[in-house]
Amino acid sequence: MAVYTDVTTDDLARFLSRYDIGELLSYKGIAEGVENSNFLVHTSKGHFILTLYEKRVAEKDLPFFIGLMEHLAARGLNCPQPVKTSDGSALGMLAGRPAAIVTFLDGLWIRKPSVGHCAAVGEALAQLHIAGSDFAMTRANALSVESWRPLLDRAAARGDDVRPGLCAEVAKELDVLEKSWPRDLPQGVIHADLFPDNVFFLGDKLSGLIDFYFACTDTLAYDVAICLNCWCFEPDHAFNVTKGRALLKAYQTVRPLSAAECAALPILARGAAMRFLLTRLVDWLAVPEGALVKPKDPLEYFRKLRFHQSVTSATDYGLDA
Amino acid sequence: MAVYTDVTTDDLARFLSRYDIGELLSYKGIAEGVENSNFLVHTSKGHFILTLYEKRVAEKDLPFFIGLMEHLAARGLNCPQPVKTSDGSALGMLAGRPAAIVTFLDGLWIRKPSVGHCAAVGEALAQLHIAGSDFAMTRANALSVESWRPLLDRAAARGDDVRPGLCAEVAKELDVLEKSWPRDLPQGVIHADLFPDNVFFLGDKLSGLIDFYFACTDTLAYDVAICLNCWCFEPDHAFNVTKGRALLKAYQTVRPLSAAECAALPILARGAAMRFLLTRLVDWLAVPEGALVKPKDPLEYFRKLRFHQSVTSATDYGLDA
Repeated sequence: MAVYTDVTTDDLARFLSRYDIGELLSYKGIAEGVENSNFLVHTSKGHFILTLYEKRVAEKDLPFFIGLMEHLAARGLNCPQPVKTSDGSALGMLAGRPAAIVTFLDGLWIRKPSVGHCAAVGEALAQLHIAGSDFAMTRANALSVESWRPLLDRAAARGDDVRPGLCAEVAKELDVLEKSWPRDLPQGVIHADLFPDNVFFLGDKLSGLIDFYFACTDTLAYDVAICLNCWCFEPDHAFNVTKGRALLKAYQTVRPLSAAECAALPILARGAAMRFLLTRLVDWLAVPEGALVKPKDPLEYFRKLRFHQSVTSATDYGLDA
Repeated sequence: MAVYTDVTTDDLARFLSRYDIGELLSYKGIAEGVENSNFLVHTSKGHFILTLYEKRVAEKDLPFFIGLMEHLAARGLNCPQPVKTSDGSALGMLAGRPAAIVTFLDGLWIRKPSVGHCAAVGEALAQLHIAGSDFAMTRANALSVESWRPLLDRAAARGDDVRPGLCAEVAKELDVLEKSWPRDLPQGVIHADLFPDNVFFLGDKLSGLIDFYFACTDTLAYDVAICLNCWCFEPDHAFNVTKGRALLKAYQTVRPLSAAECAALPILARGAAMRFLLTRLVDWLAVPEGALVKPKDPLEYFRKLRFHQSVTSATDYGLDA
């Protein structure tokens, strides 16, 4: 839930006057995205999303995110398309923040994904990887393996309040991940945060991907491992191998995984669980007691990590031998 | 900022199937209304607002609010119009909450109202009072003079932390208000919360009134006094008599104030300032330290109260003698 920055009508009207998108009819702050302030804007020419980039998004990264959305949309991927001003710029300043306007995408995100939804997201992820393969810009993944121990250090003082012994177990897992993290698998643009709330459906058909603000250049199969984590577990934290099989099979119809990528899936899945466990843990500890905003449960990813530690090969995720 | 209750796609689709408003294409929680959860819903037939009524709105009052919006819209007032199900009901249940769908109104709310905006709101307020005059239902004002001392009692323990001596000054003012509160002025439907964020404009033209969830049956001139408080002060807390004059004059072109109403304006304005001072004070003290949501400043209305205490007659608000 967001909207950190209020925008006045006058400021917004002045900002919009640089675009050819008609007259402002209404705008509402929307409760989406935890990193930025988002507004749904209605003009005489249609509906748009206005994003104000808050401090957690580095300004220097914005051309990468905006450029990537343009690149992917131009290759037929359904994602928000940055709207340019009359003089060709897709980034401006509003209320003291960098700001951009993108097209509005219809669609609904699925709270309880089915096997069919998992297949659709696998296919779309592979399409994203292919469409991104000739994107010229690069951005290092700020939340990859090197960042995890500093995150644990930030959580160390009170991490065990969340679960006794948590920090020691995480530290031990980090020893493993740092030693065995795969470095030479195929690289490219990854979404890095393709959770169900970032994938839209209309009926059973996937209608769009949103929120590219964690996108970066990293191991493609790591993106697959993230999706196994956030799409294929049941609410009781059991891994659903039918969903995993559907996701992996659909991915491979577009982009087959190499033998090395398949072999690395279990360790990549452990890393993905670690990344979300740690960022959620830091967020959890940062929220003051009694605050109205409830952070996401870090232990969900601790339980997923436990599952991945028990996995012996990618066939446990449903990968056909 | 709101959205307290999450709604799943399946639950919403099932809820919408009772209405004839087309297929669900998207919905977003919007950061508006502090009492309820609001969603902007896009269907194949248009845009709508879905409201889930949270605990602070009494379920028994909902037929009054819904009925009032229907009544006013039928009389040509631009306000959200409740949408009925195929079997004629405008209220249902969704995610365990009472819920309603109303039409979406375009328009922008004005952060810095001009004299012209104040005139427009004065005229619209009088139109609302006239349009509501034959509304059959009644609802007592739960935030009128009888409620103020209990609110002060709730704030008494820590109220002086906000400003030294505040509670004693408020108690003294309450003695005055309780003794001299006017009881026999013309009554009717009042909005009771017609702040700038509840009034939409398109260009310079008032395009709609929203948020009827404080509406009740009370002294009509008290509604005027509320508007003088929330439309006619400058950001430095000085009363702008030009704005007051414009608001009062425009109101009276539609519904002239009686001599008794004019004479009562200063005490009604003190009461209105007291009401918002007290509810803001209680909210302020209820928010835990460090919370991400910043409550509204109660002292803004303490300063306004001070001004009203210095007023000798309604001419000080710009009323023509």
